[in-house]
Amino acid sequence: MMSGRKMMSGRKMMSGRKMISVPLKENERMDYLPVRRLKIIQSEDVFVFSLDAILLAQFTYLPLQKGKIMDLCTGNGAIPLMLSMRTKARIDGVDIQHRLVDMAKRSVRFNQLADQIDIRQLDVRDVPAVYGYGSYDVVTCNPPYLPGYAGQYNDNPHLALARHELKGTLEDFVRVAGDIVRPRGKIAFVHRPARMLELLTLMRRYRLEPKRLRFVYPKPGREANMMLVEGMKDGSADLRLLPPLFVYREDDCYTQEMEQILGDESRWGMGRE
Amino acid sequence: MMSGRKMMSGRKMMSGRKMISVPLKENERMDYLPVRRLKIIQSEDVFVFSLDAILLAQFTYLPLQKGKIMDLCTGNGAIPLMLSMRTKARIDGVDIQHRLVDMAKRSVRFNQLADQIDIRQLDVRDVPAVYGYGSYDVVTCNPPYLPGYAGQYNDNPHLALARHELKGTLEDFVRVAGDIVRPRGKIAFVHRPARMLELLTLMRRYRLEPKRLRFVYPKPGREANMMLVEGMKDGSADLRLLPPLFVYREDDCYTQEMEQILGDESRWGMGRE
Repeated sequence: MMSGRKMMSGRKMMSGRKMISVPLKENERMDYLPVRRLKIIQSEDVFVFSLDAILLAQFTYLPLQKGKIMDLCTGNGAIPLMLSMRTKARIDGVDIQHRLVDMAKRSVRFNQLADQIDIRQLDVRDVPAVYGYGSYDVVTCNPPYLPGYAGQYNDNPHLALARHELKGTLEDFVRVAGDIVRPRGKIAFVHRPARMLELLTLMRRYRLEPKRLRFVYPKPGREANMMLVEGMKDGSADLRLLPPLFVYREDDCYTQEMEQILGDESRWGMGRE
Repeated sequence: MMSGRKMMSGRKMMSGRKMISVPLKENERMDYLPVRRLKIIQSEDVFVFSLDAILLAQFTYLPLQKGKIMDLCTGNGAIPLMLSMRTKARIDGVDIQHRLVDMAKRSVRFNQLADQIDIRQLDVRDVPAVYGYGSYDVVTCNPPYLPGYAGQYNDNPHLALARHELKGTLEDFVRVAGDIVRPRGKIAFVHRPARMLELLTLMRRYRLEPKRLRFVYPKPGREANMMLVEGMKDGSADLRLLPPLFVYREDDCYTQEMEQILGDESRWGMGRE
């Protein structure tokens, strides 16, 4: 399994950071994250972060100077890595898959963010017992989108776990987010519009009042295929519906807003080494 | 009160209809509806239909050839009048305000639609008892947007009733819609996004599964200020999020879609006689 290991030589980092090397395993690659030269280890065989993670990382409220953030279902750590560029708060991430946590940990090391980001392998349902109740300022979650019972699973167990609710349901993830966030703390989810009502209903059930909702449309005239929602623990009922986010223009180029979100490295997944 | 009465001489109607005259009362005016030369009696003192009604009438599913439609909180009848241009189905409308029902009835007469449209004064909560259970193919509702207890009421009792839930709550309107619609029939509401979650939750409670949701934005970059939702009685959970509707472009002109919706008479409320 380690036969494909090669040493990765990081580029010169911003702000005078030293170069650092981390091992890449078989079929892994080192990709740019769409923020300021961060890089992330990915693998088509295991997990590749998607636009959903980028938009959630950009959408969520963050404390700037201090505090604690938890990213549930963190996968290869894309969200904690991107969040680290917007905040000095401590960022925890958990995922049930050892293989993904292993990639995430190496990406954290490569980007020299081990002082800020800690990733652990854990079933999300065990998070409150391990990390404690009511202490996080922000909880983010990009959960599997498909119910555990829906359709055929991908033969690849990594992808099946990332896409289907096989280890925890949407209700589990919402409940856990509600358990670990502090009163008036924020939680942010990205999900498919088809499950919006379920998600919003669950948020209310666990006293995470939906406050900001934003829909993402692939292009003008098409139906939304993604929703971003932010709730506040024990917040009052008052939902704002943000302007729609269009990914592509009519001519299939990125919209101006997407280009801003994606930044200089706007060809994420295309700046591979 | 009738001192201001004047006789209204209708223009030549489409498709060879005869001219017809109906009385206008004090401070009433005859406006064009934004569809094919229909006209409607309005009064700033009592009620003037708004964009919400136009968009709901355009949004809702309709049976084309036969069937029964009910418009709850019909006001001066704008929605039944506009729907009559899209369907041959029978259309009923009810409103609690005698003064509005009186205007609506005269507009129906003026447009020679009395064979298709019937408006009655009734408390919406009494509708199932009077019109029966489970018989309508479609129910539309443009309810008061503000809770009964919210802020100060307008001194004008007509406007207060049209804007505040003084005679029936949102739950009453949803429950009644659910009572009178047939299984797998459609119900369509327009409301403010701030109350979206309440409305969607109520729809589910009364087995009106939300199926299509559309948000209306005043212009690009602004938050949504209106939502249109269609549900199906006893439908399965499967929500589609339609493309956003923008009313104005950046330059404050109507968008192309709005111009299409508003049609030739796109200056509704401005083509007064």
